[in-house]
Amino acid sequence: MDFDYSPKVKEWQESLNAFMEEHIYPNESVYEKQLNQQDRFSDIPPIMEELKSKAKEAGLWNLFLPDSEYGAGLSNLEYAPLCEIMGRSSLAPEVFNCAAPDTGNMEVLVRYGSDEQKRQWLEPLLEGEIRSCFSMTEPDVASSDATNVQTEIKRDGDEYVINGTKWWSSGAGDPRCKVSIVMGKNDPDAPRYDQQSMILVPLDTEGVTIKRTLPVFGYDHAPHGHAEIEFKNVRVPASHLIWGEGKGFAIAQGRLGPGRIHHCMRTIGAAERALEVMCDRVQEREAFGKTLADQGVIREWIADSRIEIEQARLLTLKAAHMMDTVGNKEAKSEIAMIKVVAPNMALKVIDRAIQAFGAAGVSQDTPLAAAWANIRTLRLADGPDEVHRRAVAKYELKKAENRRAVHAR
Amino acid sequence: MDFDYSPKVKEWQESLNAFMEEHIYPNESVYEKQLNQQDRFSDIPPIMEELKSKAKEAGLWNLFLPDSEYGAGLSNLEYAPLCEIMGRSSLAPEVFNCAAPDTGNMEVLVRYGSDEQKRQWLEPLLEGEIRSCFSMTEPDVASSDATNVQTEIKRDGDEYVINGTKWWSSGAGDPRCKVSIVMGKNDPDAPRYDQQSMILVPLDTEGVTIKRTLPVFGYDHAPHGHAEIEFKNVRVPASHLIWGEGKGFAIAQGRLGPGRIHHCMRTIGAAERALEVMCDRVQEREAFGKTLADQGVIREWIADSRIEIEQARLLTLKAAHMMDTVGNKEAKSEIAMIKVVAPNMALKVIDRAIQAFGAAGVSQDTPLAAAWANIRTLRLADGPDEVHRRAVAKYELKKAENRRAVHAR
Amino acid sequence: MDFDYSPKVKEWQESLNAFMEEHIYPNESVYEKQLNQQDRFSDIPPIMEELKSKAKEAGLWNLFLPDSEYGAGLSNLEYAPLCEIMGRSSLAPEVFNCAAPDTGNMEVLVRYGSDEQKRQWLEPLLEGEIRSCFSMTEPDVASSDATNVQTEIKRDGDEYVINGTKWWSSGAGDPRCKVSIVMGKNDPDAPRYDQQSMILVPLDTEGVTIKRTLPVFGYDHAPHGHAEIEFKNVRVPASHLIWGEGKGFAIAQGRLGPGRIHHCMRTIGAAERALEVMCDRVQEREAFGKTLADQGVIREWIADSRIEIEQARLLTLKAAHMMDTVGNKEAKSEIAMIKVVAPNMALKVIDRAIQAFGAAGVSQDTPLAAAWANIRTLRLADGPDEVHRRAVAKYELKKAENRRAVHAR
Amino acid sequence: MDFDYSPKVKEWQESLNAFMEEHIYPNESVYEKQLNQQDRFSDIPPIMEELKSKAKEAGLWNLFLPDSEYGAGLSNLEYAPLCEIMGRSSLAPEVFNCAAPDTGNMEVLVRYGSDEQKRQWLEPLLEGEIRSCFSMTEPDVASSDATNVQTEIKRDGDEYVINGTKWWSSGAGDPRCKVSIVMGKNDPDAPRYDQQSMILVPLDTEGVTIKRTLPVFGYDHAPHGHAEIEFKNVRVPASHLIWGEGKGFAIAQGRLGPGRIHHCMRTIGAAERALEVMCDRVQEREAFGKTLADQGVIREWIADSRIEIEQARLLTLKAAHMMDTVGNKEAKSEIAMIKVVAPNMALKVIDRAIQAFGAAGVSQDTPLAAAWANIRTLRLADGPDEVHRRAVAKYELKKAENRRAVHAR
Repeated sequence: MDFDYSPKVKEWQESLNAFMEEHIYPNESVYEKQLNQQDRFSDIPPIMEELKSKAKEAGLWNLFLPDSEYGAGLSNLEYAPLCEIMGRSSLAPEVFNCAAPDTGNMEVLVRYGSDEQKRQWLEPLLEGEIRSCFSMTEPDVASSDATNVQTEIKRDGDEYVINGTKWWSSGAGDPRCKVSIVMGKNDPDAPRYDQQSMILVPLDTEGVTIKRTLPVFGYDHAPHGHAEIEFKNVRVPASHLIWGEGKGFAIAQGRLGPGRIHHCMRTIGAAERALEVMCDRVQEREAFGKTLADQGVIREWIADSRIEIEQARLLTLKAAHMMDTVGNKEAKSEIAMIKVVAPNMALKVIDRAIQAFGAAGVSQDTPLAAAWANIRTLRLADGPDEVHRRAVAKYELKKAENRRAVHAR
Repeated sequence: MDFDYSPKVKEWQESLNAFMEEHIYPNESVYEKQLNQQDRFSDIPPIMEELKSKAKEAGLWNLFLPDSEYGAGLSNLEYAPLCEIMGRSSLAPEVFNCAAPDTGNMEVLVRYGSDEQKRQWLEPLLEGEIRSCFSMTEPDVASSDATNVQTEIKRDGDEYVINGTKWWSSGAGDPRCKVSIVMGKNDPDAPRYDQQSMILVPLDTEGVTIKRTLPVFGYDHAPHGHAEIEFKNVRVPASHLIWGEGKGFAIAQGRLGPGRIHHCMRTIGAAERALEVMCDRVQEREAFGKTLADQGVIREWIADSRIEIEQARLLTLKAAHMMDTVGNKEAKSEIAMIKVVAPNMALKVIDRAIQAFGAAGVSQDTPLAAAWANIRTLRLADGPDEVHRRAVAKYELKKAENRRAVHAR
Repeated sequence: MDFDYSPKVKEWQESLNAFMEEHIYPNESVYEKQLNQQDRFSDIPPIMEELKSKAKEAGLWNLFLPDSEYGAGLSNLEYAPLCEIMGRSSLAPEVFNCAAPDTGNMEVLVRYGSDEQKRQWLEPLLEGEIRSCFSMTEPDVASSDATNVQTEIKRDGDEYVINGTKWWSSGAGDPRCKVSIVMGKNDPDAPRYDQQSMILVPLDTEGVTIKRTLPVFGYDHAPHGHAEIEFKNVRVPASHLIWGEGKGFAIAQGRLGPGRIHHCMRTIGAAERALEVMCDRVQEREAFGKTLADQGVIREWIADSRIEIEQARLLTLKAAHMMDTVGNKEAKSEIAMIKVVAPNMALKVIDRAIQAFGAAGVSQDTPLAAAWANIRTLRLADGPDEVHRRAVAKYELKKAENRRAVHAR
Repeated sequence: MDFDYSPKVKEWQESLNAFMEEHIYPNESVYEKQLNQQDRFSDIPPIMEELKSKAKEAGLWNLFLPDSEYGAGLSNLEYAPLCEIMGRSSLAPEVFNCAAPDTGNMEVLVRYGSDEQKRQWLEPLLEGEIRSCFSMTEPDVASSDATNVQTEIKRDGDEYVINGTKWWSSGAGDPRCKVSIVMGKNDPDAPRYDQQSMILVPLDTEGVTIKRTLPVFGYDHAPHGHAEIEFKNVRVPASHLIWGEGKGFAIAQGRLGPGRIHHCMRTIGAAERALEVMCDRVQEREAFGKTLADQGVIREWIADSRIEIEQARLLTLKAAHMMDTVGNKEAKSEIAMIKVVAPNMALKVIDRAIQAFGAAGVSQDTPLAAAWANIRTLRLADGPDEVHRRAVAKYELKKAENRRAVHAR
């Protein structure tokens, strides 16, 4: 047991932190300003592509990809602390080509894509030339139970025909977003977990209509955007199917583990930053004749925040370590735990920081309100807290049964 | 001791509820749609003025005003449950001419305004012809401690000259907003609580510049808006001063009591509505083979929500009762308590409802996310929770001292 | 709506408070000392009977009984604030002959007892000459679901024969405890809620064995005691049955409402006292150069305690008011709510007080630890929190259904 | 970074678990029974010495001691998971000669004791022949601020004379307890942190009087006991002073680090056991037609308990790792964090388990209530939560200052 980061990881952290200081933090307001000077959804603030070039040049590119042919070849445990650093700024993940949902989509293509699919979609994604989205959630059914997915993917000769409505296809608002991985039912009569498939659908295919984008609290998240997409008799070549018919669930499972680690680590990064700005604020601001930092309740918030962040990080790193050593399946309960822990922790930390800032905290003058809203969705995305708690409990109860069975012997 | 609403109150509730059902709820989406079809800050959705006419006609107008010459003459305790009903919809308060900050401003003018001030500003406000804002908070100092206010109001011949920057002047974004009540220091050498005055400043006066409006968790709150306003050598006639020099604190105190009851009761209304939509949702939605309502954790959320709402309402009503019977000053601790209780309670209830709705809960498809963001600001506006808790504690500790003094005798 | 206590109630409060100051508080340590100088379960500290005589003389006797023939004839709403005062000391309820479980048992006898039963048991109970217990809970089944009760009460000629084991028969440890009201099944084939009966069993009947008393945390609660009682072929005359066969549930329901109000109000009294001693302590104790009262977190504890107590009291009073005006059945949801609210609130308040006291708080040097342990059982007694939350939720969901049904019309 | 226990640790865990299963758990009730058959404070249940012999024989003895001459030579990180296992039973620590406060006292003697002190006290302690206590806390001053300690230790010729009153000298009730390490002021004029010394006082010295023992939530913790001890003109040879005059604080600091790790790990073990018995209970108990385990709220409790335990354990292990690698001083903030985290976590987990058990949970029929009461004291012992949170906050604010200083350069 060893709680130190490896020398290799420490080097990566240093490079990344230096880049953040020099290029990311100072350009957050630049990005925001450029975004507001144009139609928020049609154009990409030019600073983004400039920063991407710099990151690529600095070798801080595709770090998320454990595959060493295409990516940095880091293990989950090695990538986690880097991902945390990226989570400190809403700009950073895209700059380093490590942003969801592209990372998940790229990993799907690396693992399950055909050569043709890799050439057509993986390569430009790895280059940061295009972006992608993932269409799973549907407005009419409880997505917490993925067997509910209703969209149809039907074989018709050399093509598949897709019909259904998806929403929360995040990233589809971006003009650079060229393709979606769509989950849908190809065989309602197959066993429960073999009914669904995943298929690549270029967004300019006839029958694909973005009906609207959904705000998160009041944020439109432009140009990214969370889209409601109608698929109406959409036809794509049969070769667009990923892996094979009925493999939807298997792909989803493979996609989820690393994705959760990433989300959690980014969330921890956001919490760290909130704690930092809170500490700065309370040492500078005075009320009733002393700094806020000298008021006991504020110190309690700071201490509780530190305590909660530390614990969440350790559990997330342990989950990453388990994925690397015993595999995603054995790490299932730990992955479910961090999915509950990290966002709830960060929401508390950020809420305290907002409270310490007063009205400025709910506005655009701090990164806090935007981070809060963004992370609030993570208590719902990929299954609500309640579903993950249930999974953890199920595992504990199973352990208890086994324990009693052993004792009974 | 009697926990029943009076027959008079019950009649008002009935009329108000009927109006809400017939006119308000069905037009929430109409309002939103009209707002999005135009520049959000320049024009007022036409449905608003239509609804105002209908409310006026129905006699549901200016109910907030305890003064029977100008308003409905209801006590705080009588108005509170009506205010709660209005709080169920973000549209309603304005429709009934009972919206902040106009209500507080009108009450200031009724109590402390000169005849000229009443004629010029109170009457059109009472008619709903114009709107107003209140400029107290400043960006550079901790507003939780109101003695910090830095803006200058200096006498110069027949005029006052105003210099300073205010923010969170809510409502100043609205083209109908014609006047602000500005708080500022007219005598820095006077005793601590006699330094500040309040003055009426028409927004079209030279030197008044709206620098920007501040979003709340991404919401622009158009056309209302939360403005940052610069006052640069702004000159208004001396007759615009309210009551007299050094009366700023006294006016602020008189303004705050009823304002807090109103905010709290509206907040309770918003929580009630959130609980209602949550109950509906969980009885209709299924996951894992049964309705959400049949999952134990959801029932716990419902019960806790009901329990918390009931308690917050009773405490708020008691505070209103005390204001009516023993006065705002004696009710100070109770008013501080509800200022803490109501928003924190509502945030919990609404957050549970969001969680029950899944992703829809954070979007525009339910009233939940917008209500949450709005109410989150109430933990900061008019002093953060921490300042009010401190006031309650101070009062308890004083009581303890008195108790010991009596025993020692 | 009126939040003032009536003049009549205020007078009672004054008398009661005066008695507490003069006779109860100063004798708490006397009682404890006397108890420790003897076998804790065999003898009653003499001070108790002295205090009872004084209370009787002062007319502060049997206040709980709404029946004006036998008791004070106070409504639930009138008795509630008096019961709160008694709850401030663990000694007080017995001194005023207002202690559980006798109060509930007396009320059962007043309402449902035969003349003979009243003469034999009610009268000495009203006089404070004997005590009684209530035997419902059983060790082998989940008592949260009262239909589980397994004890048999079988008719055999002119007698009933009772077989079964009960525990948590509180008060059975006291040598003055002469009779138990025992709940048991007399007809397992009757409809679910008509299977149970209640019967009076003198504790000296052959076949009644007190197996042990159960501590609460480490407290033995002597001489009261929580007994596990075995009933083995216990025979009592048929006339000992209360009301009639199959009436067990009906009696239990009638017994529960007032009992819960009493428990909740006493709990509120205990919380008030904890807050008082905490306020005194923190103003007297210094650490790190200032009193504890000047540390911000302590003030937050005081404020939150006050806020939580006020709300719990109002809700309990409202429930009492509803019982008086619309009846126990209509007040069902409110009664369930206070059953959850009051103990949880008091536990939080007392825990804060313990923390403010440091190690003294967990010992016998303050009333805090004993009050905490006692109240902790109230989250379980008469059904755990979870069962009551479920009842509240059920009621809310039913309301939601009715609301939708009305709208659908 | 590696989250696996080393093979060496895993072996120790296996041996220890086997011993617990075979010898400890089955004898918990035996111990309790023996204790109740005698005067609880005069005699030691014979089973204890039998178990100690077995543990010694099995080589499971003095594992806590990092010094390899006297103890097992395990690092903090290696010992922590073993200490956790011992924490599962209140019996276990003493059986393995790893119980507080002896462990801390032995470590003090190993590090700072003279040869004579080692021979006289350390050796019999290591053999488990005698026990010891630690006298620091005083009834009249806030012990959270250790500079408050008032007891005098005055040099007089070849002796020191000790005067003062201590309480919460845990273990002094035990007839085997032969010596106390007493902290007291030898030079009130020295710099603040050089005023205190520590001295060995045999409990049979003239002038040492045990005034009473203090219960914890009703538990007497016999035969151990928490004693209030009067030291009145107590004279001991000067050679009983540990290390040197004015070294009291330095010794206390060295003693605290490992002591906290031990307390925290034992607490985690107690929480694990509570979760286990809760899982067993809810799978066996039925209410309302299904097992408790099938009620959603119970599953939420289980999941939250698992999540909280995992996080607390990781943070405690990390603190242990830091103590081993960078030293107690650098690990100060982490040690403060776990002091807050572990007891609060365990209290929540145990409270849920109590609730799942119903009334049995507060009685002697489960280990839960006793564990709860015991752990509740850990939120106060060695400084209340609030003092530790303050230390964590201070460290964070210092970091923030340094960060800003670097940026300003």
